[in-house]
Amino acid sequence: MSLKKKPVTGMKDISPKEMEIRNYVMGLIRETYGQFGFSAIETPCVEHIENLSSKQGGENEKLIFKILKRGEKLKLESAQSEADLVDGGLRYDLTLPLSRYYANNANDLPSPFKALQMGNVWRADRPQRGRYRQFMQCDIDILGEPTILAEIELILATSTLVGKLDFENFTIRINDRRILKAMAAYSGFETDSYDTVFIILDKMDKIGLEGVEEELKKEGFPEEAVSKYLELFQKVTPDLEGVKYLKETLNGVLDEKTADDLALIIESVETVRTANFKIVFDPTLVRGMSYYTGPIFEISIDGFSGSVGGGGRYDEMIGRFTGNQTPACGFSIGFERIVMLLLEKDYQVPNKAGKAAFLIEKNMPKDKLLDVFRQAEEKRKDGTVVSMNMMKKNKKFQKDQLTAEGYTEIVEFFAK
Amino acid sequence: MSLKKKPVTGMKDISPKEMEIRNYVMGLIRETYGQFGFSAIETPCVEHIENLSSKQGGENEKLIFKILKRGEKLKLESAQSEADLVDGGLRYDLTLPLSRYYANNANDLPSPFKALQMGNVWRADRPQRGRYRQFMQCDIDILGEPTILAEIELILATSTLVGKLDFENFTIRINDRRILKAMAAYSGFETDSYDTVFIILDKMDKIGLEGVEEELKKEGFPEEAVSKYLELFQKVTPDLEGVKYLKETLNGVLDEKTADDLALIIESVETVRTANFKIVFDPTLVRGMSYYTGPIFEISIDGFSGSVGGGGRYDEMIGRFTGNQTPACGFSIGFERIVMLLLEKDYQVPNKAGKAAFLIEKNMPKDKLLDVFRQAEEKRKDGTVVSMNMMKKNKKFQKDQLTAEGYTEIVEFFAK
Repeated sequence: MSLKKKPVTGMKDISPKEMEIRNYVMGLIRETYGQFGFSAIETPCVEHIENLSSKQGGENEKLIFKILKRGEKLKLESAQSEADLVDGGLRYDLTLPLSRYYANNANDLPSPFKALQMGNVWRADRPQRGRYRQFMQCDIDILGEPTILAEIELILATSTLVGKLDFENFTIRINDRRILKAMAAYSGFETDSYDTVFIILDKMDKIGLEGVEEELKKEGFPEEAVSKYLELFQKVTPDLEGVKYLKETLNGVLDEKTADDLALIIESVETVRTANFKIVFDPTLVRGMSYYTGPIFEISIDGFSGSVGGGGRYDEMIGRFTGNQTPACGFSIGFERIVMLLLEKDYQVPNKAGKAAFLIEKNMPKDKLLDVFRQAEEKRKDGTVVSMNMMKKNKKFQKDQLTAEGYTEIVEFFAK
Repeated sequence: MSLKKKPVTGMKDISPKEMEIRNYVMGLIRETYGQFGFSAIETPCVEHIENLSSKQGGENEKLIFKILKRGEKLKLESAQSEADLVDGGLRYDLTLPLSRYYANNANDLPSPFKALQMGNVWRADRPQRGRYRQFMQCDIDILGEPTILAEIELILATSTLVGKLDFENFTIRINDRRILKAMAAYSGFETDSYDTVFIILDKMDKIGLEGVEEELKKEGFPEEAVSKYLELFQKVTPDLEGVKYLKETLNGVLDEKTADDLALIIESVETVRTANFKIVFDPTLVRGMSYYTGPIFEISIDGFSGSVGGGGRYDEMIGRFTGNQTPACGFSIGFERIVMLLLEKDYQVPNKAGKAAFLIEKNMPKDKLLDVFRQAEEKRKDGTVVSMNMMKKNKKFQKDQLTAEGYTEIVEFFAK
């Protein structure tokens, strides 16, 4: 009888080398976010299928790994559809379980509640290079804080974390869903066309201003609206001046406080930041999920395309689940992407313990053997890693292998 | 639309308080086992259903959470049985995935390979107090080491770990499957009755010697065999003398090396141990899983019933999967049980950082606010946890809540 040796389609085994980096990053996350007062919680990987299918998960709801009912509950003969067969599924994100957790435990939780979640999620996506069907998500969320204190703390915590990871520079881009909407309204787009406009706007970094203009026109939007819209983007600068410009220009369609708050977030982060990064105002930042209600942000590492994290304010989502309006704001760090970048640049985990391998010749007399164990134990007390090994016939190969594993000190013990 | 608020049946949400202890214990495990040269690996939570159903998992195979096929592969109309509907399942232990991992990666792995696995497993057991359907397992295994060096290292690593956890005393009980069998053979039991004999023997700590005698007789075993068997248990002592006694008495049915090796394991561990524990020879120790082939061991904490971990040598299992005989030995620590015991005794994680809460009055002028952020950042540099909070109307309640969360320093910042 033989096993299928490969992992299931789209999932992967993780080697000691990658695990070392993962564990290091996870430790750093716990430490850094802990210092900002975030508390770790955990929810089961399996969720009620009703919760997973509640239309909050967008496209992800099509990608659920569903779990078969068990025992008498499974009635195969009378099952008409998938729904009759399953009662659970693997979670596709950590936001839905957080909402459930909060609804279930709100009375015992502090307000605001600052949660840190690190855990696997599953999506039955088409397998592709570098994207897996099981992957780690890492979210921080502040529930119950209506002011921009939440945004500032989330951005400072995340940038402090990324700053500890030896990347040269990184950039935080920030926008506000209400500014996005106000810019569209000011230009004369109809409310029900915003989604289409934003999907096109979202391509700005790929197709440029002219590409956006072309696609907007192709959609049949009035030329006047399109040119008014694009003019805004030409005039606005990616800084506090840009925010101020929009505050004045969008007067009447944009609440002044929205612009002032955004400016204060940027200024606070700029003033306090300890790491080497920029925070820029990016009026083209859209972020896909429709549940965002206020500031939105993304973090990217200079020299690498794509973002390594993002988030924003979603004041209406928790209430839709719990029945109680609860302001909420979160930042999700792209754990897998960060680990991949660190692996690619052959990142060395700092402050590694020294590694010593003891090679013990066969048939060592008992007293000598006990003494070797004692020596190993002594060395471990100093913080050194000590691995005990029986000496092999091909000692050169054995030593090479140990050196490749990072053992810098190899001590031989002979029977005589 | 409202969510189901409770977790799915038999699984639990984990609070910040429990997470603090879990993360501390996990860190200690990584550090301690790391010092013994174990490398962390990880496998997907989802396994091929064929692997999970390969008859290696014993009773656990009845408890699998099975995962529905997706897309075109799911043919509901033509499905005759459960097996037609599923292609994966959640792993019920970490030993099967380790075998698959080893089979898939053996060429790139050092020999011996010392693996540390920490991860969730799932069993659709009848829910009961303190036992959950998702729980963490924590295994160390040494693959490719035929000598008792493996047993000694596993026991030293595990006892070092438990010793760091502030329990007063603990005990490691050790036996050998070959001694178990030799004792039964010596007494005159037939080979095919061993399993029945061992199941009864396993109850010794509950029903005592007389209870075992009664049950063996009730099974219809010859009186002579029963009395010869029990006499052995009366004469043997739980120490090196006991091993020596059996070595002499079982001469002819027990390989001398088995007894000598067991004695050397006990003596080595006794000599080298740093923590406060006993290692005793327990000829009544059975360990359920039939795959064990040599030494078996369990660890229990004095004053608490049941074991908090166990393991043994299983030299034939990996080969059955991979086709290549591979000696193997493992020790699994009862992570959930240890966390439960620590929670019950209100264990305080050592070396906790100081915790300060900053309370910020509403409408704080910008310059002042930026200064508060700067002060927080300074304090964090010293290692202090700093949580920023808007000052609430009911400040007394807010302070009480923060104190309950462990914030010992509360600093107020006023707008004027």
